[in-house]
Amino acid sequence: MLTMNDISVALEVALSYKELNRSAVKRGLSPSDVTCVTPSAGWFGPSEEGRRVIKVQCFSNQGTPNFYMRPLEGLTMTVDIDKKVVVKFTDTGGEIPVPKATGTDYRFKNQKEPLKIKAINPISIEQPLGPSFTVEDGHVVKWANWEFHLKADQRAGMVISRAMLSDSETGVPRSVMYKGFSSELFVPYMDPDENWYFKSYMDAGEFGMGATAMSLVPLNDCPRNSYYMDGIFASWDGTPFVQPNMICVFERYAGDISWRHSEIPVNGFDIREARPKVTLVARMAASVGNYDYIFDWEFQTDGLIHVTVALSGMLMVKGTTHQTVDQMPSQEAASGPLVSENAIGVLHDHFITFHLDMDIDDTNNTFVKVDLVKERTLPGQSPRKSYLKAKRNIAKTEDDARIQLKLYEPSEFQVINPSRRSRLGNPAGYKIVPGGNAASLLDHLDPPQLRSAFTNNQVFMSRQFISPFSMVHALTIVRVHLFQLSSAFSLR
Amino acid sequence: MLTMNDISVALEVALSYKELNRSAVKRGLSPSDVTCVTPSAGWFGPSEEGRRVIKVQCFSNQGTPNFYMRPLEGLTMTVDIDKKVVVKFTDTGGEIPVPKATGTDYRFKNQKEPLKIKAINPISIEQPLGPSFTVEDGHVVKWANWEFHLKADQRAGMVISRAMLSDSETGVPRSVMYKGFSSELFVPYMDPDENWYFKSYMDAGEFGMGATAMSLVPLNDCPRNSYYMDGIFASWDGTPFVQPNMICVFERYAGDISWRHSEIPVNGFDIREARPKVTLVARMAASVGNYDYIFDWEFQTDGLIHVTVALSGMLMVKGTTHQTVDQMPSQEAASGPLVSENAIGVLHDHFITFHLDMDIDDTNNTFVKVDLVKERTLPGQSPRKSYLKAKRNIAKTEDDARIQLKLYEPSEFQVINPSRRSRLGNPAGYKIVPGGNAASLLDHLDPPQLRSAFTNNQVFMSRQFISPFSMVHALTIVRVHLFQLSSAFSLR
Repeated sequence: MLTMNDISVALEVALSYKELNRSAVKRGLSPSDVTCVTPSAGWFGPSEEGRRVIKVQCFSNQGTPNFYMRPLEGLTMTVDIDKKVVVKFTDTGGEIPVPKATGTDYRFKNQKEPLKIKAINPISIEQPLGPSFTVEDGHVVKWANWEFHLKADQRAGMVISRAMLSDSETGVPRSVMYKGFSSELFVPYMDPDENWYFKSYMDAGEFGMGATAMSLVPLNDCPRNSYYMDGIFASWDGTPFVQPNMICVFERYAGDISWRHSEIPVNGFDIREARPKVTLVARMAASVGNYDYIFDWEFQTDGLIHVTVALSGMLMVKGTTHQTVDQMPSQEAASGPLVSENAIGVLHDHFITFHLDMDIDDTNNTFVKVDLVKERTLPGQSPRKSYLKAKRNIAKTEDDARIQLKLYEPSEFQVINPSRRSRLGNPAGYKIVPGGNAASLLDHLDPPQLRSAFTNNQVFMSRQFISPFSMVHALTIVRVHLFQLSSAFSLR
Repeated sequence: MLTMNDISVALEVALSYKELNRSAVKRGLSPSDVTCVTPSAGWFGPSEEGRRVIKVQCFSNQGTPNFYMRPLEGLTMTVDIDKKVVVKFTDTGGEIPVPKATGTDYRFKNQKEPLKIKAINPISIEQPLGPSFTVEDGHVVKWANWEFHLKADQRAGMVISRAMLSDSETGVPRSVMYKGFSSELFVPYMDPDENWYFKSYMDAGEFGMGATAMSLVPLNDCPRNSYYMDGIFASWDGTPFVQPNMICVFERYAGDISWRHSEIPVNGFDIREARPKVTLVARMAASVGNYDYIFDWEFQTDGLIHVTVALSGMLMVKGTTHQTVDQMPSQEAASGPLVSENAIGVLHDHFITFHLDMDIDDTNNTFVKVDLVKERTLPGQSPRKSYLKAKRNIAKTEDDARIQLKLYEPSEFQVINPSRRSRLGNPAGYKIVPGGNAASLLDHLDPPQLRSAFTNNQVFMSRQFISPFSMVHALTIVRVHLFQLSSAFSLR
């Protein structure tokens, strides 16, 4: 993982490099107008191993804090962090204008033209008796029937451990998960250009989800009555430092329904039962350069754990000579759509994988793949020709638990404890429910895909944990093509 | 669509049928203990056409309002609604005990043993200055930059029409959608048994999403400051009647973030910007027998429309002689898992299709399928071997717009107005974003699948509307296999 010191060194080396100044001046900029960032160099074969290099790319901050919209396109430096030298400098983009600053400053205080939109009255989540959760020893969160340990981690961002759910009849806590966190991200951009090909980020391992998680803003990032937790991290030289208010914990009520049932009067019952849905959320937001990832771990009283990643922030745009679509010989030939004058929003994917070390009741857990298969009826058996059947397959090898999701041959995924049975004899277990999902379409032999081969399967189990432990890796994806989405999966 | 009168007639005919009493007494029940419901008969070929028949199945309500958990398994009547006679009576389940009532009463007032769960303090969404939306003429909802017509419909439940979004710079309303509603549901159960094969419900067309939508319960079904709208419907003889508080409209704030960005300090900007997310929701809940469907249409200030269907209520269970899993020769041979003593939760799907008549700016709209395809680089072109490319295909025929989602050959879907261009020259448009989705696995020639063939494609366009109009039908699915889920899609 890069330290802040590595990044500072790379930027110092780059900003004092004379060719950079010359390129800036050529574009009509003074050196103080230039802000640079440090995209990781990726991995493109053994010839690049054994040295610590990073790319540096620059932008104009003239008239805007949103320098991301103003790239000095075509300018890329490769910096050796240890030797503190520029290893390679290329500037092939002299003909491409720096996109204008007009309308790019997103800061609320600088919005001069109010939007023509009817104002929304103040609204908030209120708890007159205060929140219902407690945080003991700074880390142990207790709420309703849940108890878990929460901590900030420099690499993973937020780690949930020893999550336990109380049995609603006996009150005895039962183990659910030993540890859960986002273990890695993979963000390949889809442009083979010299200045773009290497953008194949592994955000957690390269930049750190915790290291890039800035303080949350009360009432804007988290609602009233949130509890804020600091991160205590290590500097490059071992000195500890505090990342204040890095995580927030709050009770969430969105006006939603947890469970309901009404009877229609014809059955003789006048029943209108409904339970409002209140949940507990642990949140952090990592700002990895232009992008902001908002991670939510949400706990429900019915035992469900819902993990959401929302994407925000800015696009990383590519400079172009074109101001309008009509000027482009073929918009399809570009690596993305024109999103502003002289700026292309380059197509890319975000893969986020979660490490889920489930301990259902104890460590004796098993992974079960439940296939939903079409059965055909026998002639004369039924007016129906077909129906679905659930077939359970217990994973015995690593291969059994390498899952490529199939829309037309669907499966469900469970982690069960075969020795803990319910009153009826069913094993205790949790279901892993992938949300909207996708797959990497890169060539399997493409260097970025070789390095991030964990995205070849949407769900997989680590070899050493097939038995008796169950460690599940579940993948979630956000594919960015002009629009930003959020993605989620659930544990139940 | 069945009327309440049809259902009453069917129940009267069934309850006065002597064989039913005999079957009840054989199971130790008195006639007053018996509650019956009217599953639709489905369609199983031309021989069943030309008559109005319905199935009647019964349950014990002894000691519980949750009669769904106490089936008189194996007992099915076929009633001709017009002739008012029982056409067929079968009782093959005399050996199967009626499951016990113990622990099935879900009413809050009857919970005697408090759950061993730490109490949650009061929590609510508060708006000291009141809500920010208005409802004009009882139907026209205006909020922030949105305006739409909302009405209750006996069949569709809730209809959104003439949805318009104001341009944030000029304040001028722009048309987005002419009409949107859930046009049909398909709920096939997966058991070929004589008493189960016909369960292949089309809930909207058979029972009516509006007709089965009971009054919402303030604070439990909808948060404070909700506006409630009645449904005015027609009885079987044309007499109007009021379904009070059938729809609620409210502003939703869940502590979520609409947009955010922080800068890491190394770039020289001290920026922590975040905007809380407030949305407007129109909600209704249909109680189609045992199931409750909660429909939410959520409008965001950034133009996104998010449609969610959450499922609640009770399972429809099948009686069995087995009390525990150990007694079953093979649980896999059953049509679902044992969910309580003598009760099996039968596997089934819920398909919900939405009619979306988009009018982006005007009626000159086109459907575009954007394929994401793998491109390979040329030798020597780049250290990268591959990248994604977006290829746009304008639908010219009905076939072009019949979409079967593919996880490994993904596409995106847009409705655009080719004659309304942005400053850059991009067409105005909305993207249709299916959420977690699935496909019907029934045989295409199975009668239920023939009748609900609209589920053969997840997205399709009606023939007469390919051009110049764009009418999209988007499908969402909830597959129920022990666990209940919610499903969603977005328009953006």
